[in-house]
Amino acid sequence: MLGKLTGWDDTIVALSTPPGVGAIAVIRLSGQKSLEIANDLFPAKDLSIQPTHTLHYGLLADGDAVLDEVVIGLFKTPQSYTGEDVIEISCHGSPYVQEKIIEACIKKGARMAKPGEFTQRAFLNAKMDLTQAEAVADMIASRTEASRQSALYTMRGGFSNELFHLRERLLSFSALIELELDFSQEDIEFADRWQLFQLINEATETTEQLLESFRLGNVIRNGVQAAIVGKPNAGKSTLLNALLNEDRAIVSEIAGTTRDTIEEIINIEGILFRLIDTAGIRQHTVDTIESMGMAKSMEKIRQADIVIYLFDVNDGAIPADAISMFEVTAAEKQIHVPIDEVHGSKFIFVGNKTDMMGEEAAVKKFSDIPHPIFISAKQHQGIDKLKKELAGRVLQGKSQPEGTIVTHARHYAALQQVQLSLMDIRKGLDSHLTGDLLALDIRRCLHYLGEITGEVTNEEQLSYIFGKFCIGK
Amino acid sequence: MLGKLTGWDDTIVALSTPPGVGAIAVIRLSGQKSLEIANDLFPAKDLSIQPTHTLHYGLLADGDAVLDEVVIGLFKTPQSYTGEDVIEISCHGSPYVQEKIIEACIKKGARMAKPGEFTQRAFLNAKMDLTQAEAVADMIASRTEASRQSALYTMRGGFSNELFHLRERLLSFSALIELELDFSQEDIEFADRWQLFQLINEATETTEQLLESFRLGNVIRNGVQAAIVGKPNAGKSTLLNALLNEDRAIVSEIAGTTRDTIEEIINIEGILFRLIDTAGIRQHTVDTIESMGMAKSMEKIRQADIVIYLFDVNDGAIPADAISMFEVTAAEKQIHVPIDEVHGSKFIFVGNKTDMMGEEAAVKKFSDIPHPIFISAKQHQGIDKLKKELAGRVLQGKSQPEGTIVTHARHYAALQQVQLSLMDIRKGLDSHLTGDLLALDIRRCLHYLGEITGEVTNEEQLSYIFGKFCIGK
Repeated sequence: MLGKLTGWDDTIVALSTPPGVGAIAVIRLSGQKSLEIANDLFPAKDLSIQPTHTLHYGLLADGDAVLDEVVIGLFKTPQSYTGEDVIEISCHGSPYVQEKIIEACIKKGARMAKPGEFTQRAFLNAKMDLTQAEAVADMIASRTEASRQSALYTMRGGFSNELFHLRERLLSFSALIELELDFSQEDIEFADRWQLFQLINEATETTEQLLESFRLGNVIRNGVQAAIVGKPNAGKSTLLNALLNEDRAIVSEIAGTTRDTIEEIINIEGILFRLIDTAGIRQHTVDTIESMGMAKSMEKIRQADIVIYLFDVNDGAIPADAISMFEVTAAEKQIHVPIDEVHGSKFIFVGNKTDMMGEEAAVKKFSDIPHPIFISAKQHQGIDKLKKELAGRVLQGKSQPEGTIVTHARHYAALQQVQLSLMDIRKGLDSHLTGDLLALDIRRCLHYLGEITGEVTNEEQLSYIFGKFCIGK
Repeated sequence: MLGKLTGWDDTIVALSTPPGVGAIAVIRLSGQKSLEIANDLFPAKDLSIQPTHTLHYGLLADGDAVLDEVVIGLFKTPQSYTGEDVIEISCHGSPYVQEKIIEACIKKGARMAKPGEFTQRAFLNAKMDLTQAEAVADMIASRTEASRQSALYTMRGGFSNELFHLRERLLSFSALIELELDFSQEDIEFADRWQLFQLINEATETTEQLLESFRLGNVIRNGVQAAIVGKPNAGKSTLLNALLNEDRAIVSEIAGTTRDTIEEIINIEGILFRLIDTAGIRQHTVDTIESMGMAKSMEKIRQADIVIYLFDVNDGAIPADAISMFEVTAAEKQIHVPIDEVHGSKFIFVGNKTDMMGEEAAVKKFSDIPHPIFISAKQHQGIDKLKKELAGRVLQGKSQPEGTIVTHARHYAALQQVQLSLMDIRKGLDSHLTGDLLALDIRRCLHYLGEITGEVTNEEQLSYIFGKFCIGK
């Protein structure tokens, strides 16, 4: 367990609301000097004698220079987000004014906060564990109901509790076994091997469930990369528009937040599908197998979690290269790819332009194609069916996340190590291993469990985790 | 004076922080039902029995569905921004979460606030007058020290006070004169004509000062449109880069807020210079008189407040068309154009590439050009001199705004009417007009003064003014 770090006595400041112009903006201070700094800048009242969780209206001034009319929110240690004294300055939402206020705070002794540093302090001051801290970032990044729910569940300690119980029980065994070592001369077993065996079985089951949940968790957190490929004139643009159309409201909102990414995003049943735009321009989202050449198409198809292969039902048979890709990718199953196990592939074959020949004829004509879906993108027919298929491949029968869902690769990797150590403990029990060796395996298991929640950690890892947060959180 | 409007009993909700992803976001409720709505969504505490100006941490939930962990700020009527019960919900800065919370507030009986509606309510509940309300928007839009200071001064009632004193004194005369009308049979003068004469003179002087201040005020609020014109290869791009370079930090920050406008912005001595980009692309900022044709150049030059005419000192004489434009524009002085009166033109002639022939030779060669400035954009020589000249033309000796600066065209127009009615009162006094006719002129003057501060207003005007605010303020 990490205690307070040294050098932790400085005071940090950052803009906590999104950058840009708004009605108001909130600037946050945390640290030993935050009250002193706020008092320096807020002559109206002595904030240090005000009760915690109170709001104070007045002028913010750097000496004679009035900066703004503000409302100050006061959170006194330890009743704050970070556990330290926290001041929230709610000012007018002009970037210039924000900058002036932050400058004044720095002049009075604060320093600019690093990304995630408020949450990092909350973690180091034991206001939350590492999974909860990570969930804070996930909550901020959440764009769907599923990702919001999953983040909130973890943020509120759902995942931590599950690991905590496991860890507690293992710890008690560990203590008993280590006690045996002190009495090793006497060949006494304090730790009931049968109970330990049962515990390991339970723990293994839990771990497997958690590992299994990562397939869905990864999708919930990161969305699904979907590529639409097909010959020119198969109707890829029209399909893209048809898919986007109904979600126009959600899409345009999200667009504002992903201005720099080159993908179109659709929310289907709470899952984000990222229609990958490898060229950066909408028009190029939809490239053709023919024009790109097989190699480039394959690369793109490999990257995608799901590939929609679109063909015109009025054309002849679909090209052999599509079928061969289907066969190739069917053999390639990666852990992060939520491939439909039943269909054995990430390919969805979609026959377009059924309005010209009729769906029934199309079904008959393409009976050799595995699980085809027939649509008319232009007439907006079959789009719902396609969406259902897309969501179905990802959710695999689970409609919405329930209980703990592992959403981080970091957790997944640690859980794999937990699983391995559990297997070793189990093997050790089976072969009547001595207590000292069993204890080693249990400690290894505890180590990896502790890595997830942050009981075991190092500064480098923390920098990495919190470095991905936004500034001000 | 407007009282509370009917239909004013609904509760409004909006996101008050900038849109997008951030550490936190603030959603604001105002109105009779805000406490009830917040209580519905915040089961942890009964907010209605909590004192005003307090902060409350807990879960926000719509029935069983937990929405987020939030901090609620409580401002009870009348001690709030709008004067009504105001609730500020500080949630995680995910657009999706924000949306869910706003939806929940609407479900519980709030409605989406219109732009500026919180401030409009503050105005209608007499928490501020109209100039102060307008200054709130100016404060949010402020990007320079001058615009921030001027907005803050007005927001804090500086302008209102000035008008208030004028109005009070005119009102007392008006009352006395109207009293005379009741005794018109008896030919009594309650209102001392000499005192009125003096007051009108003082008021005229104040009004003239205020009108005069608009030249600077408009620049402070809206910045200065500056065009760089000249022959191809005069070095316009290089000059633009040299001007931008030093302010790169400020420019890139502002860029985020003006993503959609097509101009480069430089802050020189607290004045924003907008280098107009008529074509929308950087490269085209700098077009040439020759290639555009005289007509188009003239249009652009007319629009600009300041024109930098750049020429290569190594070329022959500068073209006759530039000199003729100089003469044409010298004759065109518009009220919004902060032309340097001394130089009588908005033209600045700038000789570039002095590094090749030396500045002294250039000065001699172009002795016929009015007030030329010589630079080497490439060597970054003379750029400071040019900046000083640019700021000097705008500020005209005034270094920073002091006292009241009129920054709104609406105020300017009303003050012109005030000035006219003051002249009429003065004329009336000169020609010994009867009290009833004098009273009419005084009432007209009071009307226009009242229009500025919002004592006299109508819904259409208010919609127009507040419609330009951002949502959530």
